[in-house]
Amino acid sequence: MKIVCEKEKLASVINIVQKAVSSKTTLPILEGILIETVESGVKFTSNDLEISIECLLQAEVKESGAVVVESRMFGEIIRRLPDTDIILYSEDNGVFVIECEGSLYRLVSLNPDEFPKIPEVKVQESISIKQNILKEMIRQTIFSVSVDENRPIFTGCLLEIKEESINMVSVDGFRLSLRRQRYEGEGNNLNVVIPGKTLNEIFKILQNNNEEISISVAKNQALFKMKDVKIVSRILEGEFLNYKAAIPVEKEIRIKVNKDFLLSAFERIYLLTRDEKKYPVKLKIENNVITIMCNSTIGNAKEEISAEIEGKDIEIGFNPKYFIDALKVIEKEQVYIDFTTSMAPGVIRPVEEEEFIYMILPVRIREENI
Amino acid sequence: MKIVCEKEKLASVINIVQKAVSSKTTLPILEGILIETVESGVKFTSNDLEISIECLLQAEVKESGAVVVESRMFGEIIRRLPDTDIILYSEDNGVFVIECEGSLYRLVSLNPDEFPKIPEVKVQESISIKQNILKEMIRQTIFSVSVDENRPIFTGCLLEIKEESINMVSVDGFRLSLRRQRYEGEGNNLNVVIPGKTLNEIFKILQNNNEEISISVAKNQALFKMKDVKIVSRILEGEFLNYKAAIPVEKEIRIKVNKDFLLSAFERIYLLTRDEKKYPVKLKIENNVITIMCNSTIGNAKEEISAEIEGKDIEIGFNPKYFIDALKVIEKEQVYIDFTTSMAPGVIRPVEEEEFIYMILPVRIREENI
Repeated sequence: MKIVCEKEKLASVINIVQKAVSSKTTLPILEGILIETVESGVKFTSNDLEISIECLLQAEVKESGAVVVESRMFGEIIRRLPDTDIILYSEDNGVFVIECEGSLYRLVSLNPDEFPKIPEVKVQESISIKQNILKEMIRQTIFSVSVDENRPIFTGCLLEIKEESINMVSVDGFRLSLRRQRYEGEGNNLNVVIPGKTLNEIFKILQNNNEEISISVAKNQALFKMKDVKIVSRILEGEFLNYKAAIPVEKEIRIKVNKDFLLSAFERIYLLTRDEKKYPVKLKIENNVITIMCNSTIGNAKEEISAEIEGKDIEIGFNPKYFIDALKVIEKEQVYIDFTTSMAPGVIRPVEEEEFIYMILPVRIREENI
Repeated sequence: MKIVCEKEKLASVINIVQKAVSSKTTLPILEGILIETVESGVKFTSNDLEISIECLLQAEVKESGAVVVESRMFGEIIRRLPDTDIILYSEDNGVFVIECEGSLYRLVSLNPDEFPKIPEVKVQESISIKQNILKEMIRQTIFSVSVDENRPIFTGCLLEIKEESINMVSVDGFRLSLRRQRYEGEGNNLNVVIPGKTLNEIFKILQNNNEEISISVAKNQALFKMKDVKIVSRILEGEFLNYKAAIPVEKEIRIKVNKDFLLSAFERIYLLTRDEKKYPVKLKIENNVITIMCNSTIGNAKEEISAEIEGKDIEIGFNPKYFIDALKVIEKEQVYIDFTTSMAPGVIRPVEEEEFIYMILPVRIREENI
């Protein structure tokens, strides 16, 4: 194999495929990137047996062939080379060579025949969505994916088409995030749970532009396709939560409040409780003021935020971290917070937007603590 | 105690004094900041028993007094408050209160009488230097301070006045950094070794401007004084190296080379050897080319850099990290590298500048390795 390519393009391709390189593995081949010459250029592939990524590099192929090279060292050398043409080739003895101006690196390579094949995806349903929208949908739901491996289905996000919208949902037993996006295309039977890890990596690869990405689903896999990049991931098996039934429709109290003021107040008060999970904060809602209170071994604190409040007064306890997580992914200036009773979930949503809904369970507060 | 102050000023004072707050200590009082009202405002003090810092805050004193408050939590709360007036006061029960708009934080405080006193400094010698110059002098020497606690004198930098210049010197057994600065002021007997840790903290506090800082030395202490800030540090006892005798004056080979090209080449080749300390790099100097070569278990590499070379050809081995450290703190575009034999130290210095000199010992290279 022998190819000539531009440094910047090569570095960007490596950066993408490295997202699916195993860092902790007993199989050294999984720490490598497969580089193969193909008809349209050079294909770079990584595979950690959960996710695999293929990325095409435009390059001049002088001699066809394939090689597997250890990903981390290869990437670091390339990133540090000057911004000019790079020649990559393999020697007969299996050594992989990087040449660029005065620099010559000769690295041990691995056998490309041992690199795990990416299974073929027999597409059943397929949708297409803009990259920046998918990126936003992931950002607004990924944070409330469960980390409890005993219920693996909740370690992913549900992605479904329903009533002319694409919905992405995550739930971890304490809160639920739902992001809706109007959609009028094909793929009406799409209903799949994608591992959080996959979505995290896809999030990093997605560009903040309105180019399309297609999402296709097969029996056990999902396929994400962009220009030059193809990602295949396993999907999670099992029954997801009937989330629609879980979100309260009634409300007794509606609060309209400035999102940034509320977020700052929660972030400050969280400083006092973050090391001591047993200390929730108490919210007191009355007289158009939200009062947040907490009490921990190092002291106590009170935050008062003006708000427009409709409905009766209420006192309700929460884990402040769960408020912070949700308020951070909301871009709008104002949010609504709806409550019914101090035992029922609260619902947060941006004012003038129906796309994001967040539900959070209250915690019981012991009076002596607050 | 009760004071009113501006958030930004308070945050900046806390940021400075926190540099001498103990993070790992069995004495909880050392994790605190002493806040005292004084004639000219409010004095903040920290003391980790090696370094102590005093910083004056301009504030409106409503009621005089003193309090010690845990530094980390105090600083984090203040930083997250809105940019407006903050009221600090202590309650009769020893609780320390932070008040700002709708926010009220009540923290456990400690007894100010238990806070360790800062010893008075009986100044013997004193010099004055611009802050940006001292900052640069520290940057160019601190990296080669020894980490070997068995020879404590080399865990600091020598600061001396000699032949109308201020010299700062560090040496760790493998390399030596010397930074000279022309000086025609007072303090001709100054000769002191300041702990690396102290210089690291002072480096962070120093502004990049040409305001003066005075450095005074007493029997066991050094005192650094800026506007509103006073730092007292212990000094290291013992005989420093006669560094002048250690720097070779003769040279057989002089190389003039672009600093950035050389640095990039070393940084790339270091990728192959950094995990395996036993692998040095070999420099081959001939035909106006510096060739750097290395060989490790993962492969081998060669870097060629054009240079102007006067003198005979030479092959010499080095730890590449020691070249990188020195080249990184040189601002000039071109450097000289001088050698005599492959067993004698190399000397690096910027072209057209006599202020910085770096000496580096070679390592023996085993031929089979390169």
